[in-house]
Amino acid sequence: MKKLKRPYRIIDMTQYLIARPHTLVPLTYFADRYQSAKSSISEDLAIIKELFEIEDVGELLTLAGAAGGVKYIPRISRQGAFQMMEDICAELSQPERILPGGYLYMSDILGQPRTLNQVGKIFASAFSDQHFDCVMTVETKGIPLAYATATHLNIPVVIVRRDNKVTEGSAVSINYVSGSSKRIQTMSLGRRALQEGSNVLIIDDFMKAGGTIRGMMDLLQEFNAHVGGVGVFVEAKDPDQRELLIEDYISLADLTMVDVKNKAVTVKPGNYFTPIQGE
Amino acid sequence: MKKLKRPYRIIDMTQYLIARPHTLVPLTYFADRYQSAKSSISEDLAIIKELFEIEDVGELLTLAGAAGGVKYIPRISRQGAFQMMEDICAELSQPERILPGGYLYMSDILGQPRTLNQVGKIFASAFSDQHFDCVMTVETKGIPLAYATATHLNIPVVIVRRDNKVTEGSAVSINYVSGSSKRIQTMSLGRRALQEGSNVLIIDDFMKAGGTIRGMMDLLQEFNAHVGGVGVFVEAKDPDQRELLIEDYISLADLTMVDVKNKAVTVKPGNYFTPIQGE
Repeated sequence: MKKLKRPYRIIDMTQYLIARPHTLVPLTYFADRYQSAKSSISEDLAIIKELFEIEDVGELLTLAGAAGGVKYIPRISRQGAFQMMEDICAELSQPERILPGGYLYMSDILGQPRTLNQVGKIFASAFSDQHFDCVMTVETKGIPLAYATATHLNIPVVIVRRDNKVTEGSAVSINYVSGSSKRIQTMSLGRRALQEGSNVLIIDDFMKAGGTIRGMMDLLQEFNAHVGGVGVFVEAKDPDQRELLIEDYISLADLTMVDVKNKAVTVKPGNYFTPIQGE
Repeated sequence: MKKLKRPYRIIDMTQYLIARPHTLVPLTYFADRYQSAKSSISEDLAIIKELFEIEDVGELLTLAGAAGGVKYIPRISRQGAFQMMEDICAELSQPERILPGGYLYMSDILGQPRTLNQVGKIFASAFSDQHFDCVMTVETKGIPLAYATATHLNIPVVIVRRDNKVTEGSAVSINYVSGSSKRIQTMSLGRRALQEGSNVLIIDDFMKAGGTIRGMMDLLQEFNAHVGGVGVFVEAKDPDQRELLIEDYISLADLTMVDVKNKAVTVKPGNYFTPIQGE
Protein backbone atom coordinates (compact mmCIF):
# COMPACT_ATOMS: atom_id res chain seq x y z
CA MET A 1 0.00 0.00 0.00
CA LYS A 2 1.19 3.50 -0.70
CA LYS A 3 2.15 5.81 2.16
CA LEU A 4 -0.98 7.12 3.88
CA LYS A 5 -1.50 10.28 5.87
CA ARG A 6 -3.06 10.37 9.34
CA PRO A 7 -6.75 10.86 8.40
CA TYR A 8 -6.61 7.89 6.01
CA ARG A 9 -4.60 5.79 8.44
CA ILE A 10 -7.01 6.26 11.33
CA ILE A 11 -10.04 5.47 9.16
CA ASP A 12 -8.37 2.31 7.91
CA MET A 13 -7.22 1.25 11.38
CA THR A 14 -10.72 1.82 12.73
CA GLN A 15 -12.37 -0.38 10.10
CA TYR A 16 -9.55 -2.95 10.32
CA LEU A 17 -9.73 -3.28 14.12
CA ILE A 18 -13.55 -3.33 14.22
CA ALA A 19 -13.52 -6.21 11.73
CA ARG A 20 -11.08 -8.14 13.96
CA PRO A 21 -12.19 -7.97 17.60
CA HIS A 22 -10.05 -9.71 20.23
CA THR A 23 -7.21 -10.06 17.71
CA LEU A 24 -3.73 -8.83 18.53
CA VAL A 25 -2.40 -6.69 15.68
CA PRO A 26 1.34 -5.88 15.96
CA LEU A 27 2.21 -2.21 15.57
CA THR A 28 4.73 -3.25 12.90
CA TYR A 29 1.81 -4.52 10.81
CA PHE A 30 0.29 -1.05 10.67
CA ALA A 31 3.72 0.58 10.30
CA ASP A 32 4.43 -1.58 7.23
CA ARG A 33 0.91 -1.21 5.88
CA TYR A 34 1.10 2.59 5.83
CA GLN A 35 4.88 2.99 5.51
CA SER A 36 4.81 5.08 8.68
CA ALA A 37 6.93 5.25 11.82
CA LYS A 38 5.76 3.21 14.79
CA SER A 39 5.60 6.42 16.83
CA SER A 40 3.04 7.86 14.39
CA ILE A 41 1.03 4.64 14.58
CA SER A 42 1.03 4.88 18.38
CA GLU A 43 -0.28 8.42 18.18
CA ASP A 44 -3.01 7.32 15.74
CA LEU A 45 -4.05 4.52 18.09
CA ALA A 46 -4.19 6.89 21.06
CA ILE A 47 -6.76 9.00 19.18
CA ILE A 48 -8.84 5.95 18.27
CA LYS A 49 -8.63 4.67 21.85
CA GLU A 50 -9.87 7.99 23.22
CA LEU A 51 -12.80 8.20 20.81
CA PHE A 52 -13.83 4.57 21.45
CA GLU A 53 -13.96 5.36 25.18
CA ILE A 54 -15.93 8.59 24.74
CA GLU A 55 -18.43 6.84 22.48
CA ASP A 56 -18.81 3.60 24.52
CA VAL A 57 -17.66 1.60 21.47
CA GLY A 58 -15.11 -0.54 23.28
CA GLU A 59 -11.60 -0.73 24.56
CA LEU A 60 -8.33 -0.52 22.65
CA LEU A 61 -5.85 -2.61 24.59
CA THR A 62 -2.22 -1.76 23.93
CA LEU A 63 0.35 -4.41 24.77
CA ALA A 64 3.95 -3.25 24.99
CA GLY A 65 7.09 -5.23 24.14
CA ALA A 66 8.32 -7.42 21.32
CA ALA A 67 5.12 -9.52 21.24
CA GLY A 68 3.05 -6.39 21.70
CA GLY A 69 0.46 -4.69 19.61
CA VAL A 70 -3.10 -3.51 19.82
CA LYS A 71 -6.33 -5.39 20.42
CA TYR A 72 -9.89 -4.15 20.06
CA ILE A 73 -12.28 -5.38 22.76
CA PRO A 74 -15.90 -4.55 21.88
CA ARG A 75 -17.48 -3.48 25.14
CA ILE A 76 -20.54 -1.50 26.06
CA SER A 77 -21.12 -0.13 29.55
CA ARG A 78 -23.85 -1.69 31.66
CA GLN A 79 -25.63 1.67 31.60
CA GLY A 80 -25.51 1.83 27.78
CA ALA A 81 -26.69 -1.78 27.61
CA PHE A 82 -29.54 -1.00 29.99
CA GLN A 83 -30.82 1.74 27.69
CA MET A 84 -30.78 -0.64 24.72
CA MET A 85 -32.57 -3.36 26.67
CA GLU A 86 -35.26 -0.95 27.92
CA ASP A 87 -36.20 -0.34 24.29
CA ILE A 88 -36.15 -4.05 23.52
CA CYS A 89 -38.24 -4.83 26.62
CA ALA A 90 -40.83 -2.26 25.52
CA GLU A 91 -41.04 -4.02 22.15
CA LEU A 92 -41.30 -7.43 23.82
CA SER A 93 -44.15 -6.18 26.01
CA GLN A 94 -46.53 -5.69 23.08
CA PRO A 95 -49.64 -7.78 23.79
CA GLU A 96 -49.82 -8.99 20.15
CA ARG A 97 -46.80 -11.12 20.95
CA ILE A 98 -48.73 -13.48 23.21
CA LEU A 99 -48.97 -16.97 21.78
CA PRO A 100 -51.03 -19.95 22.97
CA GLY A 101 -49.41 -21.57 26.01
CA GLY A 102 -48.10 -18.27 27.33
CA TYR A 103 -45.20 -18.15 24.86
CA LEU A 104 -44.02 -14.90 23.38
CA TYR A 105 -43.45 -14.29 19.68
CA MET A 106 -39.97 -12.87 19.31
CA SER A 107 -38.70 -14.27 16.01
CA ASP A 108 -38.98 -10.81 14.44
CA ILE A 109 -36.74 -9.25 17.09
CA LEU A 110 -34.26 -12.13 16.85
CA GLY A 111 -34.25 -11.62 13.07
CA GLN A 112 -33.15 -7.96 13.15
CA PRO A 113 -29.39 -7.77 12.50
CA ARG A 114 -28.96 -4.49 14.35
CA THR A 115 -30.75 -5.69 17.47
CA LEU A 116 -28.86 -8.99 17.39
CA ASN A 117 -25.62 -7.12 17.01
CA GLN A 118 -26.42 -4.99 20.06
CA VAL A 119 -27.51 -7.97 22.15
CA GLY A 120 -24.41 -9.91 21.06
CA LYS A 121 -22.25 -6.98 22.13
CA ILE A 122 -23.95 -6.87 25.54
CA PHE A 123 -23.30 -10.60 26.08
CA ALA A 124 -19.71 -10.20 24.88
CA SER A 125 -19.25 -7.29 27.31
CA ALA A 126 -20.78 -9.23 30.20
CA PHE A 127 -18.36 -12.12 29.62
CA SER A 128 -15.34 -10.17 28.39
CA ASP A 129 -13.25 -10.82 31.52
CA GLN A 130 -12.95 -14.55 30.72
CA HIS A 131 -11.41 -16.51 27.90
CA PHE A 132 -13.79 -18.84 26.07
CA ASP A 133 -12.98 -21.35 23.35
CA CYS A 134 -16.43 -21.21 21.77
CA VAL A 135 -20.03 -20.16 22.09
CA MET A 136 -22.52 -23.02 22.21
CA THR A 137 -26.24 -22.97 21.55
CA VAL A 138 -28.96 -25.42 20.60
CA GLU A 139 -30.89 -25.05 17.37
CA THR A 140 -32.81 -23.01 16.26
CA LYS A 141 -33.70 -19.60 17.60
CA GLY A 142 -30.57 -19.16 19.71
CA ILE A 143 -28.27 -19.45 16.70
CA PRO A 144 -28.32 -15.81 15.52
CA LEU A 145 -27.73 -14.62 19.11
CA ALA A 146 -24.87 -17.08 19.60
CA TYR A 147 -23.34 -15.99 16.33
CA ALA A 148 -23.68 -12.28 17.20
CA THR A 149 -22.00 -12.88 20.56
CA ALA A 150 -19.23 -14.98 19.03
CA THR A 151 -18.56 -12.28 16.45
CA HIS A 152 -17.74 -9.79 19.19
CA LEU A 153 -15.61 -12.35 21.06
CA ASN A 154 -13.96 -13.66 17.89
CA ILE A 155 -14.53 -17.31 18.78
CA PRO A 156 -16.37 -20.06 16.89
CA VAL A 157 -19.99 -21.11 17.36
CA VAL A 158 -20.91 -24.72 18.07
CA ILE A 159 -24.50 -25.72 17.36
CA VAL A 160 -26.11 -28.57 19.26
CA ARG A 161 -28.68 -30.40 17.14
CA ARG A 162 -32.02 -31.81 18.21
CA ASP A 163 -31.30 -34.92 16.18
CA ASN A 164 -28.26 -36.60 14.77
CA LYS A 165 -27.43 -35.33 11.28
CA VAL A 166 -25.33 -37.10 8.65
CA THR A 167 -23.55 -33.81 7.94
CA GLU A 168 -22.08 -33.70 11.45
CA GLY A 169 -20.25 -37.04 11.28
CA SER A 170 -20.14 -39.29 14.37
CA ALA A 171 -21.88 -37.62 17.28
CA VAL A 172 -22.59 -37.86 20.98
CA SER A 173 -26.27 -37.84 21.94
CA ILE A 174 -27.88 -37.43 25.32
CA ASN A 175 -31.43 -37.49 26.61
CA TYR A 176 -32.64 -34.78 28.91
CA VAL A 177 -35.87 -33.74 30.56
CA SER A 178 -37.29 -30.43 29.48
CA GLY A 179 -37.82 -28.50 32.72
CA SER A 180 -41.11 -26.95 31.73
CA SER A 181 -42.81 -29.61 29.59
CA LYS A 182 -41.30 -32.57 31.50
CA ARG A 183 -40.86 -34.43 28.25
CA ILE A 184 -37.75 -36.45 27.45
CA GLN A 185 -35.84 -34.93 24.57
CA THR A 186 -32.61 -35.63 22.74
CA MET A 187 -29.72 -33.41 21.81
CA SER A 188 -26.62 -34.29 19.88
CA LEU A 189 -23.25 -32.82 19.05
CA GLY A 190 -20.73 -33.93 16.43
CA ARG A 191 -17.57 -35.48 17.88
CA ARG A 192 -15.34 -33.10 15.99
CA ALA A 193 -17.35 -29.99 16.86
CA LEU A 194 -15.69 -29.52 20.24
CA GLN A 195 -12.22 -30.14 21.62
CA GLU A 196 -11.73 -31.82 25.00
CA GLY A 197 -11.20 -29.38 27.83
CA SER A 198 -12.83 -26.42 26.05
CA ASN A 199 -14.18 -23.54 28.10
CA VAL A 200 -17.65 -22.90 26.71
CA LEU A 201 -20.04 -19.96 26.82
CA ILE A 202 -23.66 -21.12 26.48
CA ILE A 203 -26.04 -18.64 24.86
CA ASP A 204 -29.77 -19.22 24.38
CA ASP A 205 -32.76 -17.11 23.48
CA PHE A 206 -35.27 -18.27 26.08
CA MET A 207 -35.16 -20.07 29.41
CA LYS A 208 -38.06 -21.30 31.47
CA ALA A 209 -36.91 -23.90 33.99
CA GLY A 210 -33.43 -24.22 32.49
CA GLY A 211 -33.81 -27.84 31.31
CA THR A 212 -32.35 -27.23 27.86
CA ILE A 213 -29.32 -25.45 29.29
CA ARG A 214 -28.94 -28.20 31.90
CA GLY A 215 -28.98 -30.64 28.96
CA MET A 216 -26.20 -28.73 27.19
CA MET A 217 -24.17 -28.81 30.40
CA ASP A 218 -24.60 -32.60 30.63
CA LEU A 219 -23.62 -32.93 26.99
CA LEU A 220 -20.49 -30.88 27.63
CA GLN A 221 -19.46 -33.31 30.37
CA GLU A 222 -19.29 -36.01 27.69
CA PHE A 223 -16.64 -33.85 25.99
CA ASN A 224 -14.82 -33.14 29.26
CA ALA A 225 -15.57 -29.52 28.50
CA HIS A 226 -16.26 -26.79 31.02
CA VAL A 227 -19.13 -24.29 31.13
CA GLY A 228 -17.57 -20.91 31.84
CA GLY A 229 -20.73 -18.88 31.49
CA VAL A 230 -24.41 -18.96 30.58
CA GLY A 231 -26.29 -16.08 28.97
CA VAL A 232 -30.00 -16.09 28.14
CA PHE A 233 -31.79 -13.35 26.27
CA VAL A 234 -35.19 -13.72 27.97
CA GLU A 235 -35.90 -15.70 31.11
CA ALA A 236 -39.42 -16.57 32.19
CA LYS A 237 -39.72 -18.16 35.58
CA ASP A 238 -42.77 -20.31 35.93
CA PRO A 239 -44.53 -19.25 39.17
CA ASP A 240 -45.38 -22.93 39.83
CA GLN A 241 -41.78 -23.97 39.30
CA ARG A 242 -40.04 -24.90 42.55
CA GLU A 243 -36.56 -24.08 41.38
CA LEU A 244 -34.41 -23.54 38.32
CA LEU A 245 -32.29 -26.38 37.00
CA ILE A 246 -29.27 -24.08 36.66
CA GLU A 247 -27.79 -21.57 39.05
CA ASP A 248 -25.32 -19.13 37.54
CA TYR A 249 -26.56 -17.33 34.49
CA ILE A 250 -27.02 -13.87 33.10
CA SER A 251 -30.37 -12.79 31.69
CA LEU A 252 -30.92 -9.62 29.69
CA ALA A 253 -34.69 -9.58 29.96
CA ASP A 254 -37.19 -11.09 32.36
CA LEU A 255 -40.68 -12.05 31.27
CA THR A 256 -42.34 -11.53 34.62
CA MET A 257 -45.95 -11.86 33.53
CA VAL A 258 -47.97 -13.17 30.60
CA ASP A 259 -51.71 -12.96 31.01
CA VAL A 260 -53.19 -14.79 28.04
CA LYS A 261 -56.77 -14.02 29.04
CA ASN A 262 -56.33 -10.28 29.43
CA LYS A 263 -53.68 -10.02 26.73
CA ALA A 264 -51.03 -8.41 28.91
CA VAL A 265 -47.28 -8.97 29.04
CA THR A 266 -44.59 -7.53 31.28
CA VAL A 267 -40.95 -7.78 30.27
CA LYS A 268 -38.29 -6.11 32.43
CA PRO A 269 -34.52 -5.87 32.12
CA GLY A 270 -32.94 -9.10 33.41
CA ASN A 271 -30.59 -9.97 36.25
CA TYR A 272 -27.52 -8.56 34.44
CA PHE A 273 -28.89 -5.12 35.27
CA THR A 274 -29.63 -5.73 38.96
CA PRO A 275 -26.51 -3.74 40.01
CA ILE A 276 -27.76 -0.57 38.29
CA GLN A 277 -31.51 -0.96 38.68
CA GLY A 278 -31.57 1.35 41.71
CA GLU A 279 -29.93 4.24 39.90
CA MET B 1 -21.58 15.56 22.51
CA LYS B 2 -18.83 18.15 22.75
CA LYS B 3 -17.33 19.63 19.62
CA LEU B 4 -14.96 17.14 18.00
CA LYS B 5 -11.98 17.76 15.75
CA ARG B 6 -11.50 16.05 12.41
CA PRO B 7 -9.48 12.99 13.52
CA TYR B 8 -12.08 12.14 16.18
CA ARG B 9 -14.96 12.90 13.85
CA ILE B 10 -13.74 10.59 11.08
CA ILE B 11 -13.08 7.72 13.51
CA ASP B 12 -16.55 8.10 14.95
CA MET B 13 -18.21 8.40 11.54
CA THR B 14 -16.35 5.30 10.36
CA GLN B 15 -17.50 3.18 13.30
CA TYR B 16 -21.00 4.67 13.14
CA LEU B 17 -21.47 4.01 9.42
CA ILE B 18 -19.96 0.50 9.56
CA ALA B 19 -22.44 -0.39 12.31
CA ARG B 20 -25.34 0.84 10.13
CA PRO B 21 -24.95 -0.46 6.57
CA HIS B 22 -27.58 0.55 3.99
CA THR B 23 -28.90 3.22 6.35
CA LEU B 24 -29.25 6.81 5.17
CA VAL B 25 -27.68 9.16 7.72
CA PRO B 26 -28.49 12.85 7.13
CA LEU B 27 -25.48 15.18 7.11
CA THR B 28 -27.28 17.30 9.69
CA TYR B 29 -27.12 14.34 12.08
CA PHE B 30 -23.33 14.35 11.98
CA ALA B 31 -23.21 18.18 11.97
CA ASP B 32 -25.28 18.24 15.19
CA ARG B 33 -23.43 15.31 16.72
CA TYR B 34 -20.06 17.04 16.36
CA GLN B 35 -21.20 20.67 16.41
CA SER B 36 -19.49 21.13 13.06
CA ALA B 37 -20.39 22.82 9.80
CA LYS B 38 -21.95 20.65 7.11
CA SER B 39 -19.10 21.61 4.79
CA SER B 40 -16.59 20.10 7.24
CA ILE B 41 -18.70 16.93 7.50
CA SER B 42 -18.73 16.67 3.70
CA GLU B 43 -14.94 16.92 3.63
CA ASP B 44 -14.68 14.22 6.34
CA LEU B 45 -16.95 11.94 4.35
CA ALA B 46 -14.92 12.47 1.17
CA ILE B 47 -11.83 11.16 2.99
CA ILE B 48 -13.70 8.12 4.33
CA LYS B 49 -15.16 7.46 0.89
CA GLU B 50 -11.74 7.54 -0.73
CA LEU B 51 -10.20 5.20 1.85
CA PHE B 52 -13.10 2.73 1.61
CA GLU B 53 -12.58 2.57 -2.15
CA ILE B 54 -8.80 2.11 -1.92
CA GLU B 55 -9.23 -0.65 0.66
CA ASP B 56 -12.14 -2.48 -1.02
CA VAL B 57 -14.24 -1.96 2.13
CA GLY B 58 -17.34 -0.68 0.37
CA GLU B 59 -19.04 2.34 -1.08
CA LEU B 60 -20.11 5.57 0.58
CA LEU B 61 -23.12 6.79 -1.31
CA THR B 62 -23.78 10.50 -0.97
CA LEU B 63 -27.29 11.70 -1.71
CA ALA B 64 -27.75 15.43 -2.26
CA GLY B 65 -30.78 17.55 -1.44
CA ALA B 66 -33.09 18.05 1.52
CA ALA B 67 -33.69 14.32 1.98
CA GLY B 68 -30.00 13.67 1.36
CA GLY B 69 -27.29 12.17 3.45
CA VAL B 70 -24.77 9.40 3.34
CA LYS B 71 -25.18 5.65 3.14
CA TYR B 72 -22.56 2.95 3.60
CA ILE B 73 -22.88 0.02 1.21
CA PRO B 74 -20.58 -2.87 2.22
CA ARG B 75 -19.16 -4.19 -1.01
CA ILE B 76 -16.18 -6.29 -1.92
CA SER B 77 -14.92 -6.58 -5.49
CA ARG B 78 -15.35 -9.90 -7.27
CA GLN B 79 -11.57 -10.18 -7.41
CA GLY B 80 -11.22 -9.63 -3.67
CA ALA B 81 -14.01 -12.14 -3.06
CA PHE B 82 -12.30 -14.65 -5.33
CA GLN B 83 -9.13 -14.51 -3.23
CA MET B 84 -11.12 -15.14 -0.05
CA MET B 85 -12.98 -18.04 -1.63
CA GLU B 86 -9.80 -19.65 -2.92
CA ASP B 87 -8.62 -19.92 0.69
CA ILE B 88 -11.97 -21.29 1.82
CA CYS B 89 -12.03 -23.80 -1.06
CA ALA B 90 -8.56 -25.03 -0.06
CA GLU B 91 -9.86 -25.61 3.47
CA LEU B 92 -12.96 -27.37 2.17
CA SER B 93 -10.81 -29.67 0.03
CA GLN B 94 -9.21 -31.37 3.06
CA PRO B 95 -9.88 -35.13 2.73
CA GLU B 96 -10.68 -35.44 6.48
CA ARG B 97 -13.90 -33.60 5.71
CA ILE B 98 -15.41 -36.52 3.82
CA LEU B 99 -18.42 -38.01 5.61
CA PRO B 100 -20.39 -41.19 4.83
CA GLY B 101 -22.71 -40.63 1.85
CA GLY B 102 -20.31 -38.24 0.15
CA TYR B 103 -21.21 -35.33 2.43
CA LEU B 104 -18.63 -32.81 3.51
CA TYR B 105 -18.08 -31.70 7.09
CA MET B 106 -18.17 -27.92 7.10
CA SER B 107 -19.76 -26.98 10.43
CA ASP B 108 -16.39 -25.70 11.68
CA ILE B 109 -16.05 -23.29 8.74
CA LEU B 110 -19.66 -22.17 9.11
CA GLY B 111 -18.98 -21.57 12.82
CA GLN B 112 -16.10 -19.11 12.33
CA PRO B 113 -17.42 -15.56 12.70
CA ARG B 114 -14.72 -14.02 10.52
CA THR B 115 -15.29 -16.45 7.64
CA LEU B 116 -19.05 -16.03 7.93
CA ASN B 117 -18.64 -12.29 7.93
CA GLN B 118 -16.58 -12.46 4.73
CA VAL B 119 -18.99 -14.84 3.02
CA GLY B 120 -21.92 -12.69 4.11
CA LYS B 121 -20.22 -9.66 2.61
CA ILE B 122 -19.64 -11.49 -0.67
CA PHE B 123 -23.34 -12.44 -0.88
CA ALA B 124 -24.35 -8.88 0.06
CA SER B 125 -22.05 -7.54 -2.69
CA ALA B 126 -23.37 -9.98 -5.27
CA PHE B 127 -26.94 -8.89 -4.57
CA SER B 128 -26.32 -5.23 -3.73
CA ASP B 129 -27.97 -3.89 -6.90
CA GLN B 130 -31.42 -5.04 -5.78
CA HIS B 131 -33.67 -4.14 -2.88
CA PHE B 132 -34.72 -7.06 -0.69
CA ASP B 133 -37.15 -7.07 2.21
CA CYS B 134 -35.53 -9.99 4.00
CA VAL B 135 -33.12 -12.90 3.79
CA MET B 136 -34.71 -16.32 4.11
CA THR B 137 -33.12 -19.63 4.99
CA VAL B 138 -34.17 -23.00 6.34
CA GLU B 139 -32.84 -24.32 9.63
CA THR B 140 -30.14 -25.15 10.67
CA LYS B 141 -26.76 -24.72 9.03
CA GLY B 142 -27.77 -21.89 6.71
CA ILE B 143 -28.78 -19.61 9.60
CA PRO B 144 -25.37 -18.09 10.42
CA LEU B 145 -24.76 -17.42 6.71
CA ALA B 146 -28.18 -15.84 6.28
CA TYR B 147 -27.61 -13.69 9.32
CA ALA B 148 -24.14 -12.60 8.12
CA THR B 149 -25.59 -11.64 4.73
CA ALA B 150 -28.55 -9.82 6.28
CA THR B 151 -26.20 -7.86 8.54
CA HIS B 152 -24.44 -6.38 5.52
CA LEU B 153 -27.74 -5.65 3.78
CA ASN B 154 -29.41 -4.36 6.96
CA ILE B 155 -32.56 -6.42 6.46
CA PRO B 156 -34.19 -9.03 8.73
CA VAL B 157 -33.69 -12.79 8.58
CA VAL B 158 -36.64 -15.14 8.28
CA ILE B 159 -36.07 -18.74 9.31
CA VAL B 160 -38.12 -21.54 7.80
CA ARG B 161 -38.62 -24.41 10.25
CA ARG B 162 -38.60 -28.12 9.52
CA ASP B 163 -41.60 -28.51 11.78
CA ASN B 164 -44.29 -26.28 13.17
CA LYS B 165 -43.24 -24.68 16.46
CA VAL B 166 -45.52 -23.22 19.10
CA THR B 167 -43.21 -20.22 19.38
CA GLU B 168 -43.94 -19.17 15.79
CA GLY B 169 -47.70 -18.82 16.17
CA SER B 170 -49.99 -19.91 13.33
CA ALA B 171 -47.96 -21.12 10.38
CA VAL B 172 -48.13 -22.19 6.76
CA SER B 173 -46.67 -25.64 6.06
CA ILE B 174 -45.86 -27.27 2.74
CA ASN B 175 -44.55 -30.64 1.69
CA TYR B 176 -41.74 -30.89 -0.80
CA VAL B 177 -39.58 -33.57 -2.32
CA SER B 178 -35.92 -33.45 -1.49
CA GLY B 179 -34.17 -33.46 -4.86
CA SER B 180 -31.34 -35.77 -3.84
CA SER B 181 -32.94 -38.16 -1.35
CA LYS B 182 -36.38 -38.15 -3.05
CA ARG B 183 -38.04 -38.16 0.36
CA ILE B 184 -41.10 -36.09 1.14
CA GLN B 185 -40.31 -33.46 3.74
CA THR B 186 -42.13 -30.62 5.44
CA MET B 187 -41.24 -27.00 5.96
CA SER B 188 -43.16 -24.36 7.78
CA LEU B 189 -43.16 -20.61 8.25
CA GLY B 190 -45.03 -18.50 10.78
CA ARG B 191 -47.81 -16.37 9.31
CA ARG B 192 -46.43 -13.20 10.81
CA ALA B 193 -42.83 -13.88 9.76
CA LEU B 194 -43.30 -12.51 6.26
CA GLN B 195 -45.36 -9.72 4.73
CA GLU B 196 -47.30 -10.27 1.51
CA GLY B 197 -45.45 -9.08 -1.58
CA SER B 198 -42.00 -9.22 0.01
CA ASN B 199 -38.95 -9.49 -2.21
CA VAL B 200 -36.87 -12.28 -0.69
CA LEU B 201 -33.23 -13.28 -0.93
CA ILE B 202 -32.79 -17.01 -0.24
CA ILE B 203 -29.45 -18.03 1.27
CA ASP B 204 -28.44 -21.62 2.05
CA ASP B 205 -25.24 -23.43 2.93
CA PHE B 206 -25.45 -26.41 0.62
CA MET B 207 -27.33 -27.34 -2.54
CA LYS B 208 -27.41 -30.69 -4.29
CA ALA B 209 -30.40 -30.92 -6.60
CA GLY B 210 -32.04 -27.74 -5.32
CA GLY B 211 -35.09 -29.43 -3.75
CA THR B 212 -34.92 -27.52 -0.48
CA ILE B 213 -34.61 -24.18 -2.25
CA ARG B 214 -37.44 -25.18 -4.59
CA GLY B 215 -39.46 -25.92 -1.44
CA MET B 216 -38.74 -22.45 -0.05
CA MET B 217 -39.85 -20.94 -3.37
CA ASP B 218 -43.12 -22.87 -3.20
CA LEU B 219 -43.60 -21.76 0.39
CA LEU B 220 -43.04 -18.14 -0.66
CA GLN B 221 -45.85 -18.43 -3.19
CA GLU B 222 -48.21 -19.10 -0.28
CA PHE B 223 -47.24 -15.66 1.03
CA ASN B 224 -47.52 -14.02 -2.40
CA ALA B 225 -43.86 -13.19 -1.97
CA HIS B 226 -41.25 -12.96 -4.68
CA VAL B 227 -37.83 -14.59 -4.85
CA GLY B 228 -35.42 -11.89 -5.97
CA GLY B 229 -32.26 -13.94 -5.63
CA VAL B 230 -30.78 -17.23 -4.49
CA GLY B 231 -27.28 -17.63 -3.05
CA VAL B 232 -25.73 -20.94 -2.00
CA PHE B 233 -22.40 -21.30 -0.28
CA VAL B 234 -21.45 -24.71 -1.72
CA GLU B 235 -23.16 -26.43 -4.61
CA ALA B 236 -22.60 -30.09 -5.38
CA LYS B 237 -24.12 -31.34 -8.56
CA ASP B 238 -24.88 -35.02 -8.52
CA PRO B 239 -23.41 -36.51 -11.74
CA ASP B 240 -26.47 -38.80 -12.01
CA GLN B 241 -28.83 -35.89 -11.58
CA ARG B 242 -30.58 -34.96 -14.81
CA GLU B 243 -31.18 -31.38 -13.95
CA LEU B 244 -31.39 -28.92 -11.09
CA LEU B 245 -34.74 -28.00 -9.62
CA ILE B 246 -33.85 -24.30 -9.71
CA GLU B 247 -32.32 -22.16 -12.42
CA ASP B 248 -31.01 -18.78 -11.33
CA TYR B 249 -28.67 -18.91 -8.40
CA ILE B 250 -25.23 -17.81 -7.31
CA SER B 251 -22.80 -20.30 -5.81
CA LEU B 252 -19.57 -19.33 -4.09
CA ALA B 253 -18.01 -22.78 -4.13
CA ASP B 254 -18.52 -25.88 -6.21
CA LEU B 255 -17.91 -29.36 -4.83
CA THR B 256 -16.98 -30.98 -8.11
CA MET B 257 -15.73 -34.31 -6.76
CA VAL B 258 -15.94 -36.40 -3.60
CA ASP B 259 -14.22 -39.76 -3.82
CA VAL B 260 -15.11 -41.56 -0.58
CA LYS B 261 -13.01 -44.64 -1.45
CA ASN B 262 -9.80 -42.77 -2.23
CA LYS B 263 -10.48 -39.98 0.28
CA ALA B 264 -10.24 -37.13 -2.21
CA VAL B 265 -12.28 -33.93 -2.51
CA THR B 266 -12.21 -31.13 -5.03
CA VAL B 267 -13.85 -27.80 -4.24
CA LYS B 268 -13.56 -24.93 -6.72
CA PRO B 269 -14.85 -21.36 -6.65
CA GLY B 270 -18.50 -21.33 -7.72
CA ASN B 271 -20.43 -19.81 -10.60
CA TYR B 272 -20.28 -16.26 -9.15
CA PHE B 273 -16.65 -16.21 -10.21
CA THR B 274 -17.14 -17.48 -13.76
CA PRO B 275 -16.65 -13.95 -15.20
CA ILE B 276 -13.14 -13.67 -13.74
CA GLN B 277 -12.02 -17.29 -13.84
CA GLY B 278 -10.11 -16.76 -17.07
CA GLU B 279 -7.98 -13.94 -15.68
